[in-house]
Amino acid sequence: MTVELINVGTELLLGNIVNTNAAYLAERCADLGLSCYFQSVVGDNEERLIMVLEQAMGRSDVVILSGGLGPTEDDLTKEVAAKVCGRKLCMDEDSRARIERYFADKGLEPTENNWKQALVPEGALVLENDNGTAPGIIIEDERARVILLPGPPGELEPMFEEKAAPYLKGLTGEVIVSQTVKICGVGESRAETMVKDLIDTQSNPTLATYAKTGEVHIRVTASAGEPKEARKLIKPVVKELKNRFGQYIYSTEEDTTLEKAVVDLLQANKLTLVCAESCTGGMLSARLTNVPGVSEIFKGGFVTYSNKAKRKTLGVKKGVIQKHGAVSRHTAEEMVKGAAFVTKADVTVAVTGIAGPDGGTEEKPVGLVYIACSVKGNVTVQEYHFKGNRARIREASVTAALVLLRNCVLEYFSKVTFGK
Amino acid sequence: MTVELINVGTELLLGNIVNTNAAYLAERCADLGLSCYFQSVVGDNEERLIMVLEQAMGRSDVVILSGGLGPTEDDLTKEVAAKVCGRKLCMDEDSRARIERYFADKGLEPTENNWKQALVPEGALVLENDNGTAPGIIIEDERARVILLPGPPGELEPMFEEKAAPYLKGLTGEVIVSQTVKICGVGESRAETMVKDLIDTQSNPTLATYAKTGEVHIRVTASAGEPKEARKLIKPVVKELKNRFGQYIYSTEEDTTLEKAVVDLLQANKLTLVCAESCTGGMLSARLTNVPGVSEIFKGGFVTYSNKAKRKTLGVKKGVIQKHGAVSRHTAEEMVKGAAFVTKADVTVAVTGIAGPDGGTEEKPVGLVYIACSVKGNVTVQEYHFKGNRARIREASVTAALVLLRNCVLEYFSKVTFGK
Repeated sequence: MTVELINVGTELLLGNIVNTNAAYLAERCADLGLSCYFQSVVGDNEERLIMVLEQAMGRSDVVILSGGLGPTEDDLTKEVAAKVCGRKLCMDEDSRARIERYFADKGLEPTENNWKQALVPEGALVLENDNGTAPGIIIEDERARVILLPGPPGELEPMFEEKAAPYLKGLTGEVIVSQTVKICGVGESRAETMVKDLIDTQSNPTLATYAKTGEVHIRVTASAGEPKEARKLIKPVVKELKNRFGQYIYSTEEDTTLEKAVVDLLQANKLTLVCAESCTGGMLSARLTNVPGVSEIFKGGFVTYSNKAKRKTLGVKKGVIQKHGAVSRHTAEEMVKGAAFVTKADVTVAVTGIAGPDGGTEEKPVGLVYIACSVKGNVTVQEYHFKGNRARIREASVTAALVLLRNCVLEYFSKVTFGK
Repeated sequence: MTVELINVGTELLLGNIVNTNAAYLAERCADLGLSCYFQSVVGDNEERLIMVLEQAMGRSDVVILSGGLGPTEDDLTKEVAAKVCGRKLCMDEDSRARIERYFADKGLEPTENNWKQALVPEGALVLENDNGTAPGIIIEDERARVILLPGPPGELEPMFEEKAAPYLKGLTGEVIVSQTVKICGVGESRAETMVKDLIDTQSNPTLATYAKTGEVHIRVTASAGEPKEARKLIKPVVKELKNRFGQYIYSTEEDTTLEKAVVDLLQANKLTLVCAESCTGGMLSARLTNVPGVSEIFKGGFVTYSNKAKRKTLGVKKGVIQKHGAVSRHTAEEMVKGAAFVTKADVTVAVTGIAGPDGGTEEKPVGLVYIACSVKGNVTVQEYHFKGNRARIREASVTAALVLLRNCVLEYFSKVTFGK
């Protein structure tokens, strides 16, 4: 079954916003086993929208339109879809009541325009909008099924998950289940080589690798008549991946980010954490505090951007900075030890490096970063050479710090537990 | 003159990557005065690519394709474009030599596939690639001008700026110049109301407003035969905006972000800065340290996420937290004063709030944030109520802190200088 995406909006044609809805819908449709061969963007213009919609309905089984369901006169996606499908627009009383309630809850009066949003094409299915006033719509035309979704991602995504995805699952008669194996500390090409035989020989489930900064995700996707069956197909493949990647796998849960895995690991081992950051300037702490409930283990962080702050806050010796430089193995070590001494945290991490664009020398080029980690007094220092601009180098440093932190904690416990 | 974008790539159809090239090209084409009515995404598939390209050439003056110029057999954008335009592919000796040099510089051997990248359609213009091996191509077909660009943004963007944009400027015979007036501390709808008369009555230059988190940008765009002429048209409108928005304008420079404007303001007044963050967990420091050269004024930051850290690091009194809570006007004030006392920084900022999803109460709901700023002992505390999820609340808090910081410094100096 094929699907085609049409994103409606002048702001997309002008490049004022990036089309994240297309990426989201494309990925979710692929998950559902639908093949997408075309995506289009068109403005709020009747003639051109008719042209694009008719073409899509002629070549694809499902057409998903997003955007242009707002209350203003510019918004005409629904009107055009009704026209192309030969349907009249009628007032949907449920939608009307929902809009009334939505405004009442906010203590506002709806304007005349808002009632336009309660009009739906005759015989269409209505998808309730829990996060806004524009209902979604499904028109089952004989050429194609046309699905209209609101443009704001905060409305589109929950409506797709809760209403459109179950509808699409019902059409294909099969369920697609996928599980992602998340790996850190293994380079992309090495990870690919390690699973090439599986990718080449498997057809259900399929395997696909995705590289993120400092991480590799392997998605295992199976289709079957029942979710249970699909999960049964996935299980042995995930087990095989666990055999191959072992401790490099930080999670197989959809919602678990690397920072969440690190926080969970510390929590499980009742270890407190403190960060001392120079070139990342607070980004490591910021990423860790993305995790709700982190306060149980995160004691705090220091942004010791200047040499003086490194000395005053962390007690890094002046002589060490003078002799080896602020970006050096020695300074990283002093920072991580200082943070542990000052805060009595079980685990401390320190980052110092040259993020650029200035400050690099032949000996110490832009991208040189030292990261140190101390777990109950056991100190590890690593040297890294990152490529790219200031933002990339800082981001790569943060991920590398999380990976090092995870490895050091795992190593500490394997030493203790297994006497390695 | 109309332009149409075609992005080629299966990874876009699968939603594995977001189509940032489309946004970039659309925005730059708009800047150049070209009207874009259609954008499409299609995979590396000959039949479908031919269909999309022929349609585009039939309805637009310029068609820009990106992606699919790589060395593998999957990459067939160039082959399809040549076929549709009825041109043979010939070896371009300059491109061949460049590819040879590119590999020699890296100490690598080109493979047989790489020479495929030096083939160009007969009579086409070749755009040299300074950042990769695939040259860009312009085919001047009688139906439309077809421009082929490589897919990686690091190759596409410089090639567009340096080679494609000058070519397009030559076609339209006019130049488009724009300037952005960047405003903070004024809500979007208020800003729009304040310039509605200008937007409604101006046609050259035109005005458009864009809302960012906590900021509003107004872009003034003029077209003329010469850049000088266009700038002359823009000047009085920017002056009028300066009259209307005054100090709320933090910059009229393309490259200046809010954090850079704040850093510049502190640098100009020789003021040092320290941040103390609770709910933003390092994001404010991270954003300030995005600015290269910030080390001159940024002494450092504290992430005092736990109550203990607030007490130990900043000397917030236990009684204050017990009586008023960690998220309170009083705690924010103690934090900002403590940071100033401990570090002797001229300016300190403190943020404490409830980012959620948990931790909210009826009295203190998720989204309640207090931000305090001290400029040489003059303390201001503000209460905010932000909407959205954890990430949104944290981001809004960081921007609000930058705005408050800027206002407090400006106010301090207007007091001192003008005796207000």
